[in-house]
Amino acid sequence: MKQIEVKKNILKSNEVLAEKNREVLNAHGIFTINFLGSPGAGKTSVLEQMIKNMKARHYMAVIEGDLYTTKDAERIEAHGIPVIQVNTGGACHLDAAMIEEALALLELEKINFLVIENVGNLVCPASYDLSEHMRVTVLSITEGNDKPLKYPSMFQRSDVLIVNKIDLLQFTNFSMEELYQDISCLNKDMKIFEVSCATGEGFDKLCDYFNTRLQQEGGEKHA
Amino acid sequence: MKQIEVKKNILKSNEVLAEKNREVLNAHGIFTINFLGSPGAGKTSVLEQMIKNMKARHYMAVIEGDLYTTKDAERIEAHGIPVIQVNTGGACHLDAAMIEEALALLELEKINFLVIENVGNLVCPASYDLSEHMRVTVLSITEGNDKPLKYPSMFQRSDVLIVNKIDLLQFTNFSMEELYQDISCLNKDMKIFEVSCATGEGFDKLCDYFNTRLQQEGGEKHA
Repeated sequence: MKQIEVKKNILKSNEVLAEKNREVLNAHGIFTINFLGSPGAGKTSVLEQMIKNMKARHYMAVIEGDLYTTKDAERIEAHGIPVIQVNTGGACHLDAAMIEEALALLELEKINFLVIENVGNLVCPASYDLSEHMRVTVLSITEGNDKPLKYPSMFQRSDVLIVNKIDLLQFTNFSMEELYQDISCLNKDMKIFEVSCATGEGFDKLCDYFNTRLQQEGGEKHA
Repeated sequence: MKQIEVKKNILKSNEVLAEKNREVLNAHGIFTINFLGSPGAGKTSVLEQMIKNMKARHYMAVIEGDLYTTKDAERIEAHGIPVIQVNTGGACHLDAAMIEEALALLELEKINFLVIENVGNLVCPASYDLSEHMRVTVLSITEGNDKPLKYPSMFQRSDVLIVNKIDLLQFTNFSMEELYQDISCLNKDMKIFEVSCATGEGFDKLCDYFNTRLQQEGGEKHA
């Protein structure tokens, strides 16, 4: 009982701070996505492909959430865009306070597209508002198509599902049909994209989608 | 600050209850393992292979932790061994109170080998003692060999690492050499087994290991 009350308080104060951060992001016209998924779903690899495809058109920046290491941030930095590393010190999710600190370290007037890569975890990050305009969950073929029903909150609260590693589909018993069926039950408005970082398949379509959304938000490169 | 204090209290009361559960398990001579890993690492599939291999020799039972569904418990039940389903109602890990409730539903005098399959999560479950005699973490090839360094607590606090889906090794850039190196830095006493549920490779060796451990604990089928 006590644990639940405390969790409510934590979530409440997270919401208040997230609202403050959202005002800052909106004031700077920064479209922000919260990038979620299991450990090993391929979040960083998908993000690298998106950066290659989109960095000429947008001022991108990344906030990298990790328990302890800087491994993912180093991979992103190699693409020449600003990265802020947030080490959670073992905590299982990013929260609004961490995002507030990270935003203070970015040159916000030079950004129009911010990606927050969360800690690899299909449970806890679903509960934390990071001021994002869109939630994107990455699910890999090799995790199995039963994951949306087993971890429903993450899929119910996300706007976009990226199904990654489709090059491995033939070596698994993953049912794409069941996946689409389950998603239509859980979250019928969810947009689904199928991609492979190994072959590059699907990224044109995915990045077109984000480009259109950014255009709607008025965010084009204004250099 | 407040959050950390609360977490300490929760962990403390978990420890006290875990100690009570451990006395119950020891009094009945039940060797217990806590089965951990990311969503989609293949915990249930590995467990099914172990059950097929070991159920003739041991009185097995399984406690299945899941957020909401009974999907995994149904798979285990099909093998004809007792299963208790624990739905955490969205919580990201099992705790000692849930195990206490599950133990009350099992015929303890008829069991010598209990497997607790935790919620798929490479972070939070590492902090919760479930009275286990051994922690076993399942990591799949398709998650990437960087996971032990990125999620160190789980690997530092486990006794056995099962590397699953080795049939997919050739289609990934997973480095087995780096994995063994990283594990030797994090936890040099960790036993590593490589398996494939698709081909059955590696399970004889893995089950021999558990059989030997159970024999040392005095646990053979005594029907």
